[in-house]
Amino acid sequence: MQSEAATPRRGRGRRPAAEVRASVLRAAADLLLGEGIKAVTFDRVATAAGSSKMTLYKWWPSAGALAAEAFFAHSEQQLEFPDTGDIRADITTQLRAFVRLLTHDGTGTVIAGLIGNAQTDPELSAAFSRHYSAPRRALAVAAFEKARDRGQLRDDIDLGILVDQLWGACYNRLLVPDAPLTEEYAVALVANVLDGAAPR
Amino acid sequence: MQSEAATPRRGRGRRPAAEVRASVLRAAADLLLGEGIKAVTFDRVATAAGSSKMTLYKWWPSAGALAAEAFFAHSEQQLEFPDTGDIRADITTQLRAFVRLLTHDGTGTVIAGLIGNAQTDPELSAAFSRHYSAPRRALAVAAFEKARDRGQLRDDIDLGILVDQLWGACYNRLLVPDAPLTEEYAVALVANVLDGAAPR
Repeated sequence: MQSEAATPRRGRGRRPAAEVRASVLRAAADLLLGEGIKAVTFDRVATAAGSSKMTLYKWWPSAGALAAEAFFAHSEQQLEFPDTGDIRADITTQLRAFVRLLTHDGTGTVIAGLIGNAQTDPELSAAFSRHYSAPRRALAVAAFEKARDRGQLRDDIDLGILVDQLWGACYNRLLVPDAPLTEEYAVALVANVLDGAAPR
Repeated sequence: MQSEAATPRRGRGRRPAAEVRASVLRAAADLLLGEGIKAVTFDRVATAAGSSKMTLYKWWPSAGALAAEAFFAHSEQQLEFPDTGDIRADITTQLRAFVRLLTHDGTGTVIAGLIGNAQTDPELSAAFSRHYSAPRRALAVAAFEKARDRGQLRDDIDLGILVDQLWGACYNRLLVPDAPLTEEYAVALVANVLDGAAPR
């Protein structure tokens, strides 16, 4: 059984853990984006990263958890939420970018695959939440709180629910594709959510 | 081909196709609810239903598609959308029942598993849409159109998007469980969606 200690670096010593970790995450992301989530197994990632399978078992509770961390570590998007002082404009910018991500060749399928596999892999579910959805939810809620303080959102509204109404609605069209997901959809969704469905 | 005409009497000849189909769907639903979606294989369903695997291959494009049809054929809920003439009350009734379904022992996990597996099984995705999500979407939109005609929903709103804002928001809490899904959530969601997040 191969171990990191048995892998000399330029002939001497072992590779630093951070370096091994980075190359494992890169290898996992490549497999995920190239062949889909089913390709991300400890076996294949270890081989591609030139690492030992024992190390992977030690660091990640499941191959799915590794896939989720790899995707978000190597994906381009920032967690940043724009803050121009106009919540309607900022949500629209954010949601359009999100829809582009979800409908982009590869990334949309990967995100759908991660959420899909998370339903039967609790470790992947936890990793998806930790590395992606929970921090995104927190950033959105923080932006909503500032907007509420500026008088742009109602005082009596549940800001957490707003996250589901916006990003959750987009996920719904990704995961249960009965109707199209487009940037125009994102724009109309923001109007629906902010202005309300009942007559004013 | 099995037919009524080919079944002379109980205990002799072949079972009618409709009877075989019903017993296959029942066996698949039992496996799905008892052990989860991974238990629904053509092998196990054929054995449990006392049917031939060839018949299952002939009738269903994938075990996932069979699982989806089985779940909705044998689940108790109706597709019915209440129509009391008050859209706010009707949506609230519908969403509370939906949240109860999603948070019920067994059914929530099964629905999450069906949507999850649908991400990598196109036949399951198609069956989920055909037997469940597309007809539900159509019924909701029809109810919204009647409400709009009564002046209870704005004329300029996209009624299809409203479906994602309501049921999609609940699915989001089921599939990406960063925040709780409760009947109180359903009630607050309806207020958010109808009244809008922006100050009136």
